[in-house]
Amino acid sequence: MEHPYVPRDLQLLGFVPGSLPHTTIIGVYGVSSLLVVSLIWILSGRSSRLLKIDRWLMCWWAFTGLTHMILEGYFVFSPEFYKDQTGFYLAEVWKEYSKGDSRYAGRDSAVIAVEGITAVLEGPACLLAVYAIAKGKPYSHILQFAISLGQLYGTVVYFITSILDGDNFAASSYYYYAYYVVANSFWVLIPSLIALRSWKRICVASQGQDQKKTKFR
Amino acid sequence: MEHPYVPRDLQLLGFVPGSLPHTTIIGVYGVSSLLVVSLIWILSGRSSRLLKIDRWLMCWWAFTGLTHMILEGYFVFSPEFYKDQTGFYLAEVWKEYSKGDSRYAGRDSAVIAVEGITAVLEGPACLLAVYAIAKGKPYSHILQFAISLGQLYGTVVYFITSILDGDNFAASSYYYYAYYVVANSFWVLIPSLIALRSWKRICVASQGQDQKKTKFR
Repeated sequence: MEHPYVPRDLQLLGFVPGSLPHTTIIGVYGVSSLLVVSLIWILSGRSSRLLKIDRWLMCWWAFTGLTHMILEGYFVFSPEFYKDQTGFYLAEVWKEYSKGDSRYAGRDSAVIAVEGITAVLEGPACLLAVYAIAKGKPYSHILQFAISLGQLYGTVVYFITSILDGDNFAASSYYYYAYYVVANSFWVLIPSLIALRSWKRICVASQGQDQKKTKFR
Repeated sequence: MEHPYVPRDLQLLGFVPGSLPHTTIIGVYGVSSLLVVSLIWILSGRSSRLLKIDRWLMCWWAFTGLTHMILEGYFVFSPEFYKDQTGFYLAEVWKEYSKGDSRYAGRDSAVIAVEGITAVLEGPACLLAVYAIAKGKPYSHILQFAISLGQLYGTVVYFITSILDGDNFAASSYYYYAYYVVANSFWVLIPSLIALRSWKRICVASQGQDQKKTKFR
């Protein structure tokens, strides 16, 4: 069966076309994400200690952590997702996303390396961040900073390798912008904001620490 | 001219063999690094505020920063280093290192992406870390943590992509271990230790900050 991806000479023996419409694929992801965010928002609202910004951050970390572990985790460990005949949702996600970046179907090494680190290390770390914020742990800011920096590093490697390899992996400019550019831009914008915020907080805390040291000298 | 790299079918049109013996290449790097480290050690010794560990860290950041900017910076922006006929030292470095990992001569995208981030962003950040430690800046720990994490992320991507692509890029097992494994292991070990240390320091500072907040409530 012929695949819909670019470059056209990409070999995908045994390819089975996606069976779900893209509205369903995106809809399921959207609704599940909304459920996760609502749940975290409601649960976190019970604590009087948590600020609104903390609750939003918990929602983000739960959403992105589950995305990393479930969606990206499935991709990393399913090299033959494009052969799936059962209409399994996660296989459908990557069959669809590959229209924006065929390196997913083509198992590009840089993509797998970045997705592997994201799914295996950053995913669980995101859920730890939800817990750390909820409990006001002292490692909360440095953990959020570490994950955000990892997400940024991964996204930069993801874009640079694509450019170096000719930037010709999208089935059309619609998919290029909608899937490859816009979807990924959230993982540039939000980690940048969080990293900046955590950096500032940590600097303030370190300054306090230094002043205390000087005082007790 | 035939190249000495593996895989043997790697195409390197216009390849010119290295003209310096590997002892000279490594010797020049070793002596220059020793000079940099000695200079930083002596200069940092003038400050009574700096602990020995701070001075060692300054030496590391100066050494690794200059390595990133000069050696790796040259590689990133010299796609045709293997054609160099002049015996230029930096071209010789990469002709020699490619015996341990031919993806350098072969311009592998993942290698260029990681080296690009390392040379352009992390290199200057390392020199900023030398300054930050010297002046006791409040951002000193978070900066060191960020660079170390970047170095670790880069090294992990570097190794994972090699494994995924068949792990067959060394001219012999001597080069595999000496250049690819041992040389790179320093950029796993040292950043891990520094990241761990900075993480702990930042947690202690954050804890202090939280206690202060609670006290003044």
